[in-house]
Amino acid sequence: MIPNIPETRLKRVVIVGAGFGGLELAQQLEGLPFQVVLIDKNNYHQFQPLFYQVATAGLEPSSISFPLRRVFRDNPNFVLRITEFYEVEPETRIIRTGLGPISYDYLVFAMGADTNYFGLKGVAENAIPMKSVSEALALRNTLLQNFEDAITADTDDELEGLLNVVVAGGGPTGVEISGTLAEMRKTVLPKDHPEIDFGQMHVTIVEAGPNLLGPMAPASQQKSREFLEEMGVTVRTGTQVKDYDGRHVTFSDGTKIRSNTLIWAAGVKAIDIKGLPAEAKGRGGRLLTDPYNRLRSHPDIYAIGDIALTTEEKYPDGHPQVAQPAIQMARNLARNFKAMAKGKVLKPFRYKDLGSMATIGKNKAVAEIAGFKFQGFFAWAVWMFVHLISIFGVRNRVSVFFTWAWSYITSDQNLRLILSPKKPAKPKERTGFSFEAISKAARKAESV
Amino acid sequence: MIPNIPETRLKRVVIVGAGFGGLELAQQLEGLPFQVVLIDKNNYHQFQPLFYQVATAGLEPSSISFPLRRVFRDNPNFVLRITEFYEVEPETRIIRTGLGPISYDYLVFAMGADTNYFGLKGVAENAIPMKSVSEALALRNTLLQNFEDAITADTDDELEGLLNVVVAGGGPTGVEISGTLAEMRKTVLPKDHPEIDFGQMHVTIVEAGPNLLGPMAPASQQKSREFLEEMGVTVRTGTQVKDYDGRHVTFSDGTKIRSNTLIWAAGVKAIDIKGLPAEAKGRGGRLLTDPYNRLRSHPDIYAIGDIALTTEEKYPDGHPQVAQPAIQMARNLARNFKAMAKGKVLKPFRYKDLGSMATIGKNKAVAEIAGFKFQGFFAWAVWMFVHLISIFGVRNRVSVFFTWAWSYITSDQNLRLILSPKKPAKPKERTGFSFEAISKAARKAESV
Repeated sequence: MIPNIPETRLKRVVIVGAGFGGLELAQQLEGLPFQVVLIDKNNYHQFQPLFYQVATAGLEPSSISFPLRRVFRDNPNFVLRITEFYEVEPETRIIRTGLGPISYDYLVFAMGADTNYFGLKGVAENAIPMKSVSEALALRNTLLQNFEDAITADTDDELEGLLNVVVAGGGPTGVEISGTLAEMRKTVLPKDHPEIDFGQMHVTIVEAGPNLLGPMAPASQQKSREFLEEMGVTVRTGTQVKDYDGRHVTFSDGTKIRSNTLIWAAGVKAIDIKGLPAEAKGRGGRLLTDPYNRLRSHPDIYAIGDIALTTEEKYPDGHPQVAQPAIQMARNLARNFKAMAKGKVLKPFRYKDLGSMATIGKNKAVAEIAGFKFQGFFAWAVWMFVHLISIFGVRNRVSVFFTWAWSYITSDQNLRLILSPKKPAKPKERTGFSFEAISKAARKAESV
Repeated sequence: MIPNIPETRLKRVVIVGAGFGGLELAQQLEGLPFQVVLIDKNNYHQFQPLFYQVATAGLEPSSISFPLRRVFRDNPNFVLRITEFYEVEPETRIIRTGLGPISYDYLVFAMGADTNYFGLKGVAENAIPMKSVSEALALRNTLLQNFEDAITADTDDELEGLLNVVVAGGGPTGVEISGTLAEMRKTVLPKDHPEIDFGQMHVTIVEAGPNLLGPMAPASQQKSREFLEEMGVTVRTGTQVKDYDGRHVTFSDGTKIRSNTLIWAAGVKAIDIKGLPAEAKGRGGRLLTDPYNRLRSHPDIYAIGDIALTTEEKYPDGHPQVAQPAIQMARNLARNFKAMAKGKVLKPFRYKDLGSMATIGKNKAVAEIAGFKFQGFFAWAVWMFVHLISIFGVRNRVSVFFTWAWSYITSDQNLRLILSPKKPAKPKERTGFSFEAISKAARKAESV
């Protein structure tokens, strides 16, 4: 076998994706009689809920990324391979990867979801997505460069394009990034760029539905809108982006905004799995599973997290595509693997909604936990606490806490560096493993 | 004027380069009757002495980079422009930049030095330099990817190439990175990659001169060699790299080492300034100045730091190309600008050698300060302290201290992420300002 995975007498569970679901499952399987092979295209786990802070120079990428190799030290039955997943061949029970074929006894898809451009070609080509640390870093570089360029803009039209930001999508990511940009416009940016009149900078958030934060209660929706409007963000609900050519955002009502920066947080779709029949997939490309997270079409293949469409009476269209269902599915599936090993009966998945929240700015958040709804400073404090304890790794927690405390005291972001590795990694001798190939594949997957 | 610099009645000092010299000078000129225009291609100042820790995943790039816009807030006579310097036209007193022409009354070159490949084409194409944060990050990504690839190497030859590292240059950078790699081989790497036999990884440092740390005293040279050899580094002095094709490093004695990674810290050359006559430049392309840092050929143009060749009786070939001469020249030049404004007499530059040091590993360093030479734990503690207080910005100092303390306690580097911004910044509408152009220009400058 090319990827050099040790032969054992244990059954092999191959997990594809080291996000919230995949990483949790791999950890929960520790000590059970399985060989676990975890595959991810990155050598780190990413804490998605804080991408927007990386994009706005509030947090360092490394504070919300955790090196996967640190997690599974001293575990001989665990194998990690950093490579791209290409396709599955269910008949022969192998997957094809950038490193070659890997056979499985059980296969778990946990690759999550990627940006959905809903077929809008101009948007796919020109908007900036926010579904990875790398993309968040690229957004940071773009925003900072725009403000540099704005100083020497030749025309008012150019200046307008450089300063205006349009955020598509009224979910937590969209709300959070709009709020942060509005705060930066008030605090950091005028100090950094005294030559620019930030009164000319407009932040607009667009949501197709009637309200921001669709799944939350009306009180939270209303309050988040109020917070944003107080901070000077233009909130446009019931409006969709129809087209974007890199210079003008065109909306469903025919209006346009001149902006060089459209941030796209308007929707996701499950990562497309090659090798499975069309009937394995449901709405949004998600894999249809039974209550035990088994693919209905292939009972030795599982799906958890954003990529899975597991229905319950309360969730006939599947669960929300956020961290908690992924983590809970991973825990339930690990219990079921344990049950299988012992010949016991399996437990169907039941989602326990722990609540939801979004932060809009300093001391401004909305939260709904265990039936309680609250807003403002207390919600913001809870938001901070919940995110802090959820971050993987003690060092990252300390680092995020330190950075947040510093920013809170100084009202300053400290990471305003336009920074990229200079020299690309040398072309690899082996095919299927180059960065070029990976990013090309990723781009292809995106533009489908 | 295209770069949109305010007109004033003050004389304009244009400083090119925001390294140790340029940044210090710009700060020292605050309050004097000059308009100061600072130009750099990056929007951050870089702390060069710690690049090697970024390259070996010990420090975050942001911990040793400082956003330039934060330094000069609330100073109406200060202008910062992030752009590339193209050339100077001394007759018309303007410089050409990526943003257009900028006129000057006084011009200060403080761009430092870049990697010198000594005309070795194969080395220039295949080795990894270490003269910017971006290059250090690229080296980090390459090293980490090599260890990933090593797990699934098909042949022993391939494995050898992936594991072996050759470091060219026995100065502090070369010594420090060799020592860190040797430490990683012992601590972090075997834990992260239990599948690899790190007994097969060889770290070799090559120095053309007879000793490591050439300018230091024999006791320090000897001790640094002992430290490195104890840690398992092969030290080859009196040897030069003759060629490198990306697979084999060929030495001056005809021997070869199979290695995919040649780190090039063997020498620097001054950044080449276009528009100045050949007679303005001395050894290593450095600009010949009088004792007041004025170009001998053009008394309204100054040069400080690595790019300047300012001689003293004690330094007939110029000063060492490190931070201290640059900072001291900047301070002296600022004093002279003040003297000029008041019509007072100028002071010639006198370098005060504050000593030198290099760290080899945990509790292992050599230092020479004020005539005292010491080695081991105390030198290492002094090294840490001196570097900590030299880093620009309180937040960066706290961040580096925290990271060092954490690593010291856990014997672990925490930043082992292979990470790049995913989507390249959108092509800019304006010419001369795109990242592509900048990096192309940089690559061109490198390969000359």
